[in-house]
Amino acid sequence: MSTSRALEREEPSYFGAGPALLPTSVLQQAAYDLISYENDSIGIGEISHRSKPATKVIDDTKDNLKTLLNIPDNYEVFFLQGGGTGGFSSIAYNMMAHYAKRTGKKGKAAYAITGSWSAKALEEAQRLGFDSYTVVNTKGDNYSDIPAFSRWQPIQEDTAYLWVCDNETVYGIEFNDVPGADYLPADVPLVADMSSNILSKKIDVSKYGVIMAGAQKNIGIAGLTIYIVRKDLLDQATDAELRKLDIPLSPICFNFPIVVKNNSAYNTIPLFTCQILKLVTEKLIQDKGIDAIEKINIKKAEVLYEALESYPNFYKLPSTNAKVRSKMNVVFKTPSEDLDSKFVEEANAKGLKGLKGHRSVGGNRASIYNAVSLASVEKLSKFVKEFAEANS
Amino acid sequence: MSTSRALEREEPSYFGAGPALLPTSVLQQAAYDLISYENDSIGIGEISHRSKPATKVIDDTKDNLKTLLNIPDNYEVFFLQGGGTGGFSSIAYNMMAHYAKRTGKKGKAAYAITGSWSAKALEEAQRLGFDSYTVVNTKGDNYSDIPAFSRWQPIQEDTAYLWVCDNETVYGIEFNDVPGADYLPADVPLVADMSSNILSKKIDVSKYGVIMAGAQKNIGIAGLTIYIVRKDLLDQATDAELRKLDIPLSPICFNFPIVVKNNSAYNTIPLFTCQILKLVTEKLIQDKGIDAIEKINIKKAEVLYEALESYPNFYKLPSTNAKVRSKMNVVFKTPSEDLDSKFVEEANAKGLKGLKGHRSVGGNRASIYNAVSLASVEKLSKFVKEFAEANS
Repeated sequence: MSTSRALEREEPSYFGAGPALLPTSVLQQAAYDLISYENDSIGIGEISHRSKPATKVIDDTKDNLKTLLNIPDNYEVFFLQGGGTGGFSSIAYNMMAHYAKRTGKKGKAAYAITGSWSAKALEEAQRLGFDSYTVVNTKGDNYSDIPAFSRWQPIQEDTAYLWVCDNETVYGIEFNDVPGADYLPADVPLVADMSSNILSKKIDVSKYGVIMAGAQKNIGIAGLTIYIVRKDLLDQATDAELRKLDIPLSPICFNFPIVVKNNSAYNTIPLFTCQILKLVTEKLIQDKGIDAIEKINIKKAEVLYEALESYPNFYKLPSTNAKVRSKMNVVFKTPSEDLDSKFVEEANAKGLKGLKGHRSVGGNRASIYNAVSLASVEKLSKFVKEFAEANS
Repeated sequence: MSTSRALEREEPSYFGAGPALLPTSVLQQAAYDLISYENDSIGIGEISHRSKPATKVIDDTKDNLKTLLNIPDNYEVFFLQGGGTGGFSSIAYNMMAHYAKRTGKKGKAAYAITGSWSAKALEEAQRLGFDSYTVVNTKGDNYSDIPAFSRWQPIQEDTAYLWVCDNETVYGIEFNDVPGADYLPADVPLVADMSSNILSKKIDVSKYGVIMAGAQKNIGIAGLTIYIVRKDLLDQATDAELRKLDIPLSPICFNFPIVVKNNSAYNTIPLFTCQILKLVTEKLIQDKGIDAIEKINIKKAEVLYEALESYPNFYKLPSTNAKVRSKMNVVFKTPSEDLDSKFVEEANAKGLKGLKGHRSVGGNRASIYNAVSLASVEKLSKFVKEFAEANS
């Protein structure tokens, strides 16, 4: 094998829903780090997860996230394996353990169902035996809108947390607001699954109890999940207390207090994956932070939705409410399944890749996460218009 | 950043206990794949986990493992996140769910405690509420030997599985045999944690119900765990049946039947990590398979233990029984802690790295996994002798 080949690639226009595009410069640096980290002839994936350089990678990544999201001091940042699906389970276990500690009682969980991911999260909490209920469920309307919080069912007594999925990738629906004090009682922490839109926009972390995000959209490759958790929620009932209250215990690798106590290295953290998170967040800071990327993301979404809306008889969008349309996953259908396929094929031929919709809903989808450039979105928008003209 | 820099490194002599050394050629290929997989201008970490190339990476890795370990057709191979620690939990859940299906009853778990990892596995089963007992526990003897199976406590009725840790990395103790029909009833599956010695030696897979192995020693970087499971064990009680029997349910991401049904991609598999497993196993096949690597591993262990045993008044080994000394983790102490530290420092200066013992036991440890060359071990053995001569 030749190792003098340059680590180059043509800049891709790739719109996959996740795992998704990453900055080429990050992958290039990671490639070198894989083979020889800090010129030590040992790669970052080969060193002990408890060595000094490993701890520094973990700490730097945490610091970068704290800087970018302006995370207050009363929050912990940590990493787990298991993806968002692991988070559906781990958060339920840990929030119930905190509620038991705080109240001495078994709690209930409230879920806002605004797409297939929040539905899956609820399903898992119920499967594990946690008493759960929905405050809103838009499935009957094909997840096409998010009703005002004033129209949600009230939070019940003994509710341990309220779960929302901030951006639903399959239906392309995104929250543009957070339930506030007029809806959510102060002692009910808000849990947000931000797997598909974290670091894409400013958020006020202090409004959340838990933010959970799989890495493989905006932040890195698959294999690590980011947790941002308010410190008081780490105060949890003991295993014996949980058993007494008949509350299921988390597997030890999902136990938040233990993971925090061990700085995310209770068991072996995938350090190469963490290094990619470090490099991505470092680049975001260099590129002037969340404000700058949010502006670009707003522009990208505007350009693409504008192109689609120019042909209202040709392209169908999942929601008529522009305010809840996702700025990350632009979902659309042409007049027929045949045209949907033709769109993907012709786009592919032009180097515009990864546009097929989710298998459960069909149609097409352009995911325009942080690493997708405005230039790529403009190319796609141009094609969106040409395709409608040619096939109307 | 210059991307024309060659992807080279000086061949390291690195003896870390894990994450551990990987073949340089594998890391070089992986570095290119990270940036552009099959020259598609998209990296292997950026494509959908359900795309055709992703499925091929998963299938190829499974096939390579089947080839190398001669895995019979009545076994499934699959991958989970969560490491060995995740396996301590996932295996207990799933084996109990199988036992419940087969017998309609709640089972018990039997553990052989031969080091700190099997002790941790037992602790987790008990913590989760599974009725568990030990058939042997050598802690009182500082885990210095593995008694003959004939001296183990008998397997109790209603035992769902027997757990062994085939190689204990902290104390450097390894099984050289497997409990057979004279000890283990035919209907009690043997579960082996082979995180630190899988692919290092021939095994007869048909003797096991479950083999579990974290990737980060002999097979790849951290982030994926390999499971080899006899198919009949995937037949499990339903969630409702488990609830009725008061048996804890696994989080969905640890549910073996669901993971198998989705070819290890029920949730997003860390595909880059899987690609490294594929490349490592591919290289092992090219290098003439397990027979060849086992011969080298035996030679490496012989050379190093021989050097240590040449100075019996200087180096102390954890076991006087040569048969149970680990061929992967060679643990030893010099006459004092100061000399232990001096050994590590002087070795480091000679480019022999990663030799410090586990923090729980002190002393020194040379982990000589597959990717550590005989040449590196010979260099270390030479230093072992020199150091004893100079400091006796």
